[in-house]
Amino acid sequence: MKQILLSHGGGGEETQRLIKDLFFRYFSNPILEKMEDAAVLEINSKLAFTTDSFTVSPIFFKGGNIGKLAVAGTVNDLAMMGAQPLYMSCSFIIEEGFPFDHLEEIVRSMYEEMKKSGVKIVTGDTKVVPRGSADKIFINTTGIGRIVYDGISASNIQEGDIILVSGTVGDHGACIMAQREGIEMEGDLKSDCATLWPVVKDLIDSGIPIKAMRDPTRGGLSAVLNEWAESSDIGIEIEEDMIPVKDEVQGMCELLGLDPLTLANEGKLIIAVPEDQAEKTLEVLRDNPLGREAQIIGRAISDYKGKVILKSSYGSKRILEPPAGELLPRIC
Amino acid sequence: MKQILLSHGGGGEETQRLIKDLFFRYFSNPILEKMEDAAVLEINSKLAFTTDSFTVSPIFFKGGNIGKLAVAGTVNDLAMMGAQPLYMSCSFIIEEGFPFDHLEEIVRSMYEEMKKSGVKIVTGDTKVVPRGSADKIFINTTGIGRIVYDGISASNIQEGDIILVSGTVGDHGACIMAQREGIEMEGDLKSDCATLWPVVKDLIDSGIPIKAMRDPTRGGLSAVLNEWAESSDIGIEIEEDMIPVKDEVQGMCELLGLDPLTLANEGKLIIAVPEDQAEKTLEVLRDNPLGREAQIIGRAISDYKGKVILKSSYGSKRILEPPAGELLPRIC
Repeated sequence: MKQILLSHGGGGEETQRLIKDLFFRYFSNPILEKMEDAAVLEINSKLAFTTDSFTVSPIFFKGGNIGKLAVAGTVNDLAMMGAQPLYMSCSFIIEEGFPFDHLEEIVRSMYEEMKKSGVKIVTGDTKVVPRGSADKIFINTTGIGRIVYDGISASNIQEGDIILVSGTVGDHGACIMAQREGIEMEGDLKSDCATLWPVVKDLIDSGIPIKAMRDPTRGGLSAVLNEWAESSDIGIEIEEDMIPVKDEVQGMCELLGLDPLTLANEGKLIIAVPEDQAEKTLEVLRDNPLGREAQIIGRAISDYKGKVILKSSYGSKRILEPPAGELLPRIC
Repeated sequence: MKQILLSHGGGGEETQRLIKDLFFRYFSNPILEKMEDAAVLEINSKLAFTTDSFTVSPIFFKGGNIGKLAVAGTVNDLAMMGAQPLYMSCSFIIEEGFPFDHLEEIVRSMYEEMKKSGVKIVTGDTKVVPRGSADKIFINTTGIGRIVYDGISASNIQEGDIILVSGTVGDHGACIMAQREGIEMEGDLKSDCATLWPVVKDLIDSGIPIKAMRDPTRGGLSAVLNEWAESSDIGIEIEEDMIPVKDEVQGMCELLGLDPLTLANEGKLIIAVPEDQAEKTLEVLRDNPLGREAQIIGRAISDYKGKVILKSSYGSKRILEPPAGELLPRIC
């Protein structure tokens, strides 16, 4: 079996061959092919700029792999700022002996995922480290987008604003944990890993006034809502029963003692809009396959400033604390 | 001793605290502090965009550490394209149990190094992986620069153009190898790790017509010259004796069976200029502490297209093959 060798990361002939034979085959575009020390870009617009290193384990999981995740994750961070994803850098840290076939499968997934937003890889780096110095493969993607909808911010939310989620929560986290624990997964428990740009574009094109928007990755829904409550200095009241959670995810959470509200998502967004735009937002979300199961889940209130309140259908209330402690390592 | 825990990478409260207590203390600026999913930038110029993941081992070495290297390396890639370094992303992958003091020392070095070009970290990411999943710490930095001198390219070199190097070659590679092998280092053998933007700015401000420019990192002088010969479809003839190599580096190379021409440099540049600009270029380089030991080392010729020829002082010639095989892993 063909493997990645230290020489593939040495900067010599083997590195050149890996770049030309594998990376260019999938990522090719005129900017990347110049192979200079830096890519040259012309954008002439306000830019969004974001980075993520992906260390997920296992690297192949139901619904995706580390490559798909590395593209979707960075593209989503751009989209959440109202930016059309344009360019990405891609940097691999690969453990010596990593199967070449696996690398190719990862690269092919990245190529497929990039088509969903039109983002292009224009610069890259490959390091190969000796066995035992890294676990299989880590990928950093850093993205640049053109801001087409300006002013989205975690600190924009005002009393009365409505909070929506684009679909079920906890899918990615539950899937990764189940696979890691070797639990047989039934039904359609799989990662929701997806590029959100198409549904964000729908929202923008429909003229929805977006106040805040986030993809709830590490720390899940709970982390984002708590950050919003703090940044906007408001209370956020969530109707617990309105939060969509798949039965399989709920089951896995009960089995493993996890909370779906703190589990990572990789293809969902949370959005805050003015009250009179809530129904229209829900419609736009549900019209797109990425938001088919969208729900209105809560609103911003003047009480409980800086806190997130979970309201049960019986009317009882409790504070949703920000996630803390040893969450799930290597979830993304 | 305070250590980095998995929870510092979990995206919850501990991650927020690490960001605010450590990273913001050194990296703080208004864009970074917004802590949105992506930084918002306004540049309005042609951009350079480059990425590098740093996996160097040992992480602390004579002349620098992985943090200084991560800043200088990415800033240098921007500078080599005639771009003023503006913004950087910074992504850490840290092994659980990594000493907090070491992280702080690395972060402090990054802060010090950033002052030399004025580059700012505006977005970041921190992942903590379980013990054994990564060796200590890896850093990705991805940079954006404003192109102030346009048109530098490896494919621009024409017959007669003169090649200069800004100083001694092989220092970084020899230093890392010596430390890794536990060899007692005498004299001033240390990494040349440095931000090159100030000397590049001098070249641009002096009106030097820069045809090609590179910092010879992995694969060293040999890799760059071979790439230039191929990209520009010319021969490059180098006067071997004109290449500055420190005695300590030469000694270490003889001891370890290495070639200084293929060893990584982290604070040197190679530049190609028209023949009538060579002396002025040499002057500008030598006027800056970063180029004190600059030398004219060769020229582009019409023979030996795509090849690099080493000419000895006795007049004998040999081809300098591009570096290949297992070079030095984790050199940067």
